[in-house]
Amino acid sequence: MPLMTILTEAELRRVVRLDLEAVACVEKAFCALATEAVVMPPILRLDVVERRGEVDVKTAYVPSIDGFAVKISPGFFDNPKLGLSSLNGMMVLLSARTGIVEALLLDNGYLTDIRTAAAGAVAAKHLSRPDSHVAAIFGAGVQARLQLEALKLVRPIEEARLWARDPAKAMDTASELSRHLGIPVSAEPDPAKAAAGVDIIVTTTPATEPLILPEFLKPGQHITAMGSDSEHKNELAPGVFKIADLYVADSAAQTRRLGELHHAIDAEVIGADAAVTELGAVIAGKAVGRRGRHDITIADLTGTGVQDTAIAAFAHDRARAAKVGTPFES
Amino acid sequence: MPLMTILTEAELRRVVRLDLEAVACVEKAFCALATEAVVMPPILRLDVVERRGEVDVKTAYVPSIDGFAVKISPGFFDNPKLGLSSLNGMMVLLSARTGIVEALLLDNGYLTDIRTAAAGAVAAKHLSRPDSHVAAIFGAGVQARLQLEALKLVRPIEEARLWARDPAKAMDTASELSRHLGIPVSAEPDPAKAAAGVDIIVTTTPATEPLILPEFLKPGQHITAMGSDSEHKNELAPGVFKIADLYVADSAAQTRRLGELHHAIDAEVIGADAAVTELGAVIAGKAVGRRGRHDITIADLTGTGVQDTAIAAFAHDRARAAKVGTPFES
Repeated sequence: MPLMTILTEAELRRVVRLDLEAVACVEKAFCALATEAVVMPPILRLDVVERRGEVDVKTAYVPSIDGFAVKISPGFFDNPKLGLSSLNGMMVLLSARTGIVEALLLDNGYLTDIRTAAAGAVAAKHLSRPDSHVAAIFGAGVQARLQLEALKLVRPIEEARLWARDPAKAMDTASELSRHLGIPVSAEPDPAKAAAGVDIIVTTTPATEPLILPEFLKPGQHITAMGSDSEHKNELAPGVFKIADLYVADSAAQTRRLGELHHAIDAEVIGADAAVTELGAVIAGKAVGRRGRHDITIADLTGTGVQDTAIAAFAHDRARAAKVGTPFES
Repeated sequence: MPLMTILTEAELRRVVRLDLEAVACVEKAFCALATEAVVMPPILRLDVVERRGEVDVKTAYVPSIDGFAVKISPGFFDNPKLGLSSLNGMMVLLSARTGIVEALLLDNGYLTDIRTAAAGAVAAKHLSRPDSHVAAIFGAGVQARLQLEALKLVRPIEEARLWARDPAKAMDTASELSRHLGIPVSAEPDPAKAAAGVDIIVTTTPATEPLILPEFLKPGQHITAMGSDSEHKNELAPGVFKIADLYVADSAAQTRRLGELHHAIDAEVIGADAAVTELGAVIAGKAVGRRGRHDITIADLTGTGVQDTAIAAFAHDRARAAKVGTPFES
């Protein structure tokens, strides 16, 4: 009878926070993608069209991590009408030695939030200018909040602007972030003005039409696009790719299919088989990142199974150390 | 906080058995594949080569079933050296309305055993001669035992022969089955003699070279091949396809890639794009099955997500009715 540990969302929130250790865990995972014999199969995707529902299942085996996660992420977009959250989900952590289930992480999407925000920090750490101090955040959801917090962990951010489709929500989120992070955060209703002159732009919206146009940008800026995790989502205009000095994908195989890259390929701004730099290669020093103060850099993050495996193993270790969780015999 | 039910293997064994209701549930699932807008994505497969490990993740959405399962099936073939079972796994049952996790079925592979055996019964019910009374089982594992039991549910089986690579194991399994099912079951060390003149042949081995040759067969026989669930496995010689009157797949998309069909295509006995009859279409009366007493029929079963969704929902219903399981708030 396998003995596993069950961890609830409340327990996981207690042991895992967005901190430098969580960022380091995700950074290591990306590095592994470039340096180890990682196995990361294509995402399994199920659509339940009648309910505006979709489920993604992600996994990856990372040789330097003892366990691997299978993450089940449902998004059912009629749920708010029922008073329920659209996004949910859980992770199963299995032993990479025996395949036996070691832990059930009933996080309702919390660990995904953390590993996604951590990836934003990793991208900024390796691609933005070290003196970046002004950020623009596009979006007003959970990830918009976490992304600004993540940037503050790795860059001396002193000020931020926030744009969201709903101006009232933008105002609320901006003032909440301002209080929470102790820096001025202003809502900016004009996307061009929000982006103008900032050091780092992070997009975290469900947009299906480009939000960021090439004319918004100036030399030295870094842009992280997080919103595009399925074929129809799109935040960056193809022209942004033309003026950027460097494009970096979390996983080239995924961004060619799901990310901003896929729209740039469709627009014939980039060839479908053009070589693509991956974030892990930049971290590992196998690919060139930002070359100087004036480069415009893009990070295209679609969310990868290695991040899930890394954060699940990290959460399990922390829970064990803190003696948190319910043992369960199956 | 979502409230889910956790069901252990012991609880699932108590409420789900290989019986006519389990067979009907799997039969209905196959029928749905032919008659409903089922969504069944390709299997997600992760290989952990260093540990001779593999993980399959299967899922399917069936409109007439309220929930859908995501099944995680690891097979780590060095586990027996550690005193552990090679096969393990669990299912997660999610609401098809909201995507919220409803139940964790910690079955360690038990429900897979039942739904796989039930598929054998469904194939025999729809493709073998109704008066089939002698069966030959190839293999001596859990599935070999269950397949004979499954045949007895749908056909008047009075006698069986069992072949396995290890003759001692064949003897043990045969005498155990004989006691358990109350019919004579003999071990037969010669595969040709095991198959000679029986009404139904079921292969449940991990063979990678054909076991069943065309010269073993005679008119009127039905063959169900269950062993081939990955590219390298193979139980039927391509010549068997030449003499068969009807070939039926559980899922044509899967058997073209994983099943016996895939080897027949490689041997150029069948065209890669030849039309393939599916079991669900035969059940639904949309495709012709056995035409008479003399047809030789083949069922090629690779295991499908619809079976998992069907058995998971069935188990959840039975557990609820029996008030079995542990409620858990995440």
